Amino acid sequence: MRATLLHQAGDVLVGNVADPKIQEPADAVVRIVLGCICGSDLWPYKSQPLTDTPRQMGHEFLGVVEETGPQVTGLKPGDVVVAPFTYADGTCEYCRRGLHTSCPHGGPWGVGGVDGGQGQATRVPYADGTLVKLPVGEDSELLPDLLTLSDVLCTGYHAARTAGVTRGESVTVIGDGAVGLSGVIAAKLLGAERIILMGRHTPRTDLGVDFGATDVVSARGEEGVAAVRELTGGHGTERVLECVGLKDALVQAAGVARDGGTISRVGAPQYPEVPFGFGEFMRNLTLTGGVAPARAYIEELMPHILNGGIHPGRVFDRTVALDEVAEGYRLMNDREALKVIVRP
Amino acid sequence: MRATLLHQAGDVLVGNVADPKIQEPADAVVRIVLGCICGSDLWPYKSQPLTDTPRQMGHEFLGVVEETGPQVTGLKPGDVVVAPFTYADGTCEYCRRGLHTSCPHGGPWGVGGVDGGQGQATRVPYADGTLVKLPVGEDSELLPDLLTLSDVLCTGYHAARTAGVTRGESVTVIGDGAVGLSGVIAAKLLGAERIILMGRHTPRTDLGVDFGATDVVSARGEEGVAAVRELTGGHGTERVLECVGLKDALVQAAGVARDGGTISRVGAPQYPEVPFGFGEFMRNLTLTGGVAPARAYIEELMPHILNGGIHPGRVFDRTVALDEVAEGYRLMNDREALKVIVRP
Repeated sequence: MRATLLHQAGDVLVGNVADPKIQEPADAVVRIVLGCICGSDLWPYKSQPLTDTPRQMGHEFLGVVEETGPQVTGLKPGDVVVAPFTYADGTCEYCRRGLHTSCPHGGPWGVGGVDGGQGQATRVPYADGTLVKLPVGEDSELLPDLLTLSDVLCTGYHAARTAGVTRGESVTVIGDGAVGLSGVIAAKLLGAERIILMGRHTPRTDLGVDFGATDVVSARGEEGVAAVRELTGGHGTERVLECVGLKDALVQAAGVARDGGTISRVGAPQYPEVPFGFGEFMRNLTLTGGVAPARAYIEELMPHILNGGIHPGRVFDRTVALDEVAEGYRLMNDREALKVIVRP
Repeated sequence: MRATLLHQAGDVLVGNVADPKIQEPADAVVRIVLGCICGSDLWPYKSQPLTDTPRQMGHEFLGVVEETGPQVTGLKPGDVVVAPFTYADGTCEYCRRGLHTSCPHGGPWGVGGVDGGQGQATRVPYADGTLVKLPVGEDSELLPDLLTLSDVLCTGYHAARTAGVTRGESVTVIGDGAVGLSGVIAAKLLGAERIILMGRHTPRTDLGVDFGATDVVSARGEEGVAAVRELTGGHGTERVLECVGLKDALVQAAGVARDGGTISRVGAPQYPEVPFGFGEFMRNLTLTGGVAPARAYIEELMPHILNGGIHPGRVFDRTVALDEVAEGYRLMNDREALKVIVRP
């Protein structure tokens, strides 16, 4: 089959790989209907050294079950399913607590004999635990919205949930990428009254306003912090969603947080250390968040998509065919596209 | 009056300072009955450069109200009171939410025209908001226990509360100083079933066992982490109280935390950055805690002392007269004493 392969930084190509097959009794094989490119795919796209064993890219997809192993009981061929961005057994203590990303049997797509999400198909380990059946056909107009359950909507929701957003509160969302915009959707779902979106790209922040942001602050750094403080009576907000992953964004997050407040980080950290020393200690700031256990949130969020309450698929502003995936990466890397669907 | 003055590292002396007087209408003057030395007093004791304006030391005390300003309504001369380790107005938005340490009118003892707690008396700003009346006489045998409400017991409790300790849980407490031992008391009060105390000083960890620790791990670093993991089925504990303030202790805290767990730090950080990078992000670890708003917890904890349920005053293993305060500092700095009472 055809799949997206990263050979080295900037060199992403569609190539041939072995067709996925059932290897373990809990496996399924899924034909991919829609995949997409994640902001986190851009990190290896920018930095990967040349390798003889190119990685199969992509960790967000939905598709149709083609075949199931003998232990799979909850799914059958023909089912339309969405996958979270890591697979997990669904039965261990971590999975039962909703922390599927710490499942000892779980792992990422695209390595270790498991295919990536930007290709024609993939083997899915622990299919019963990993996949969630979608009550729509593979031609549904809701597919782009439902595809966000794979990662970006759940990641934004993880930020808002772990930050402790509750009804009536004020929230600052740092970052106007697809995760930040999903954070706006999530904060609104949880009842936040005021949602301040920090971002500099007007088309994106405009979408954020459509999603529920009540204020937009385009300034960054100290100037941005001052602007948020001015909007909030000098105090900052009790909840801050850090949806970037850079140290500067974390410093900004501390700056806009109210004393005693909580910062949730869901952007994969591109820093080894967090600048939380004596000052942040004296302010009783909490740092939470982490990689989102998307699987834990899919059933909870899906109804909001099915009933039309939210349209998170609006973060996709371009679609490319699988053979054009390199162009999709270029568009996102050059910020010409917000988030790109890959259609095999 | 006589007060403890720090001139430079290692040079702590009792000297004469002006008698405290009512300066603001909300002030009180308190004659100090008991003060004590805090682990955090040892940082300036070890590092303070020579100064012409020596700082009045001490931020933990209880005493008797001698005089009140015209705005003070809740206290009268003769009342026995305990003070939290920062003063606060008691009425602002932060104080009303229990974050007295962020009160814009609050501040530390010993600077800015306010006296320290290791002396004969002090001016108390915002006396109604700051002081808590004790229902005992100044000769009560409970005074050492009640003195811990000033800082160390509330700090341990802040660690346990912000870590989210609830009934039946497992907790690791890092540090066998007075704060760590108070953290053990607090974890037990909140219903923790298993309390693993990490510390190397047997007399202290023995006291920790008396306070409720179910396990003691004397190893540190990787070996200590391995020991805690072995005690907990390989997973670590959901709650970790970091009661030291050094970076190594924080690394150890991350090591003994279960994925998805919460580390609360209450030791004043002697580091500018927290080593919470990609690994801790992938494990969904939360870092919380901070300087304890002791005032918020005093009324809640006092009944446990009055009814004999807890005896936190056992952390005091030496008493010195005010004139011997330098010896008190030496005893604590040389780890010959756990925590020292100063009796003016």
